[in-house]
Amino acid sequence: MTRTFGLTDTFGFTLSATDGRARTGVIQTPRGDIRTPAFMPVGTAATVKAMLPGSVAATGADILLGNTYHLMLRPSAERIDRLGGLHRFMNWQKPILTDSGGFQVMSLAGLRKLTEAGVTFKSHIDGSTHVLSPERSIQIQKLLGSDIVMCFDECPALPATEAEVARSMALSMRWAQRSRDAFGDRPGHALFGIMQGGVTPDLRAESAAALRAIGFDGYAIGGLAVGEGQDAMFGVLDYAPGLLPVDKPRYLMGVGKPDDIVGAVARGVDMMDCVLPSRSGRTGQGWTRWGQVNIRNARHQDDPRPLDEDCTCPTCRGYSRAYLHHVLRSQEIIASMLLTWHNLHYFQELMQTLRDAIAAGRLSAFVAVFRDMQARGDIEPL
Amino acid sequence: MTRTFGLTDTFGFTLSATDGRARTGVIQTPRGDIRTPAFMPVGTAATVKAMLPGSVAATGADILLGNTYHLMLRPSAERIDRLGGLHRFMNWQKPILTDSGGFQVMSLAGLRKLTEAGVTFKSHIDGSTHVLSPERSIQIQKLLGSDIVMCFDECPALPATEAEVARSMALSMRWAQRSRDAFGDRPGHALFGIMQGGVTPDLRAESAAALRAIGFDGYAIGGLAVGEGQDAMFGVLDYAPGLLPVDKPRYLMGVGKPDDIVGAVARGVDMMDCVLPSRSGRTGQGWTRWGQVNIRNARHQDDPRPLDEDCTCPTCRGYSRAYLHHVLRSQEIIASMLLTWHNLHYFQELMQTLRDAIAAGRLSAFVAVFRDMQARGDIEPL
Repeated sequence: MTRTFGLTDTFGFTLSATDGRARTGVIQTPRGDIRTPAFMPVGTAATVKAMLPGSVAATGADILLGNTYHLMLRPSAERIDRLGGLHRFMNWQKPILTDSGGFQVMSLAGLRKLTEAGVTFKSHIDGSTHVLSPERSIQIQKLLGSDIVMCFDECPALPATEAEVARSMALSMRWAQRSRDAFGDRPGHALFGIMQGGVTPDLRAESAAALRAIGFDGYAIGGLAVGEGQDAMFGVLDYAPGLLPVDKPRYLMGVGKPDDIVGAVARGVDMMDCVLPSRSGRTGQGWTRWGQVNIRNARHQDDPRPLDEDCTCPTCRGYSRAYLHHVLRSQEIIASMLLTWHNLHYFQELMQTLRDAIAAGRLSAFVAVFRDMQARGDIEPL
Repeated sequence: MTRTFGLTDTFGFTLSATDGRARTGVIQTPRGDIRTPAFMPVGTAATVKAMLPGSVAATGADILLGNTYHLMLRPSAERIDRLGGLHRFMNWQKPILTDSGGFQVMSLAGLRKLTEAGVTFKSHIDGSTHVLSPERSIQIQKLLGSDIVMCFDECPALPATEAEVARSMALSMRWAQRSRDAFGDRPGHALFGIMQGGVTPDLRAESAAALRAIGFDGYAIGGLAVGEGQDAMFGVLDYAPGLLPVDKPRYLMGVGKPDDIVGAVARGVDMMDCVLPSRSGRTGQGWTRWGQVNIRNARHQDDPRPLDEDCTCPTCRGYSRAYLHHVLRSQEIIASMLLTWHNLHYFQELMQTLRDAIAAGRLSAFVAVFRDMQARGDIEPL
């Protein structure tokens, strides 16, 4: 089964197979194809921390995510535009998705002020005052040269009452229309809407209907992975993807751990992003088929084995757990480099396995094996 | 002109050309050739900071230096030996030279006690007490699997009286004999003696004679690059290399800046090491044909040009000064990665240019051009 849906002249989405609610396919962009389900590494400040872009690509990443909030403050969107755009600036020629900055400024709590127009906030770097609105967020993302632009939305802090979630969702839908108007017509570039509505099915349905009425090139499921727990998240994912157009990519923002990813893909999600593989790598966490490994633990100090003997990443092909333990304890930069590379490789390999399993119609068998191996835990000490 | 001098069964030194006092050739080892004059990057704690070993090799380095002091404390020589030696541990298959630990423990000042037997000192990591002697230093370097082992010596703190330098040199010569005895016969591995004697020609001659009487596979010139200044260092280098056997490599320890390197090579030095390219890279210093560039300076924030437009390193081929400035100011790890890579590339390219110039008999012409370009300073702001 191959269905191609044109989004713009040069931006498209082709579904090649489904397995239950899970889907696999390709998002076409002028900067290259994005195989879905896709995991996007996060390049917050114009770098995936501790990785050269060629190494990020070598792990199998087809796209990465840039953060509007961080880049608008430093070095500024106007400066990146003068320097030829974010791709040239950070030496990454494949697609880039940028978030809208909304999630980060909402997290600033006491430092920001929200109105219908937008958000006024103070920079965490130097305390200077800035404004983000749907129009300004879209302008910044255009200046960056983003391939996939996200609508500016409000992500309410948890816990929140249903009334608060409803008010916030309605605001985000008005902002979605303003984002759509500000984006205009940009062949080869995509604008994604963001569904809100918390854990309330009626609000999710209302949000999905509002977004579909406006019309977007793809649809994100927002307001999840913000502390609600996996059960609540999967509860929403059991119905929310089905509220969105079947012919457009569905993006779950800020997810997640490997078992979050597997559960989300099984529920029909096409794209995800998370800082987890890079951030946890910098603190000594390795991710393998057997779950999480804390390389700082003394049990590894004499262990000549790699993190995963079957892994083909440069870290596992060249270095023992004992070495990783040593350079981590010695606070050497190479510890962040090697653990981040391994983790990104593992996440991308997981995505490839998921794509293959969906294409072969054996996703549920894979999920069973995956859960069994994750539950088994790390290999025994020598 | 090609002369080959066998050092051991599988360790040798071949001089292929001289130009004035400068020499070029190859040190043969079972782990590969070392083209001389050679610059050795420093891999203190089993890593050249912020670099993967493959990247270090890609800059043109034929050998790197490991620090006995750091490795004996963490993760310990015995642990590295159990894990298969330093080459396997750090994933570097080319030759490794290890220092003796002497220089570092002497720098601990109040934390150490010196006797004829050796040095007792406290670890800077956890305060634990350790002993280094000629015998223990050689044992540690054997456990590490070092290809070129250095004698354990005393490097007196400056300023020092001539009497103090003489006393220290005599001790180092007794320790050189004990190092030689402890090293024994190790085909394929080399032991280098270290000349001392400060800035006093008679003491340098006495030290050289003592070392030649013992007999080594190579000879280091110690006690320089410790704050005496370039004029005093070059003053010693005007005669000290000539006191050493012509058929053995001469190693100037801890040098240096590009113009130190050029001056030392012109005076007959074959090998050098220094943390400068990596350490200064981590603080935002780039080295180019036009001298030193402080990339932290605001003049670079909008500059789309690479550090050096003619440089072929990945940093200069992929990134602007504006990007380097941004990631340095943002304290991103990639800043250390990119600046270290460029600097090591520049240092190795300088060594290749020196080797070519000596082989072509045009070293003095190159030195004149080098000094002229260094004096010119960095390119003009846009």
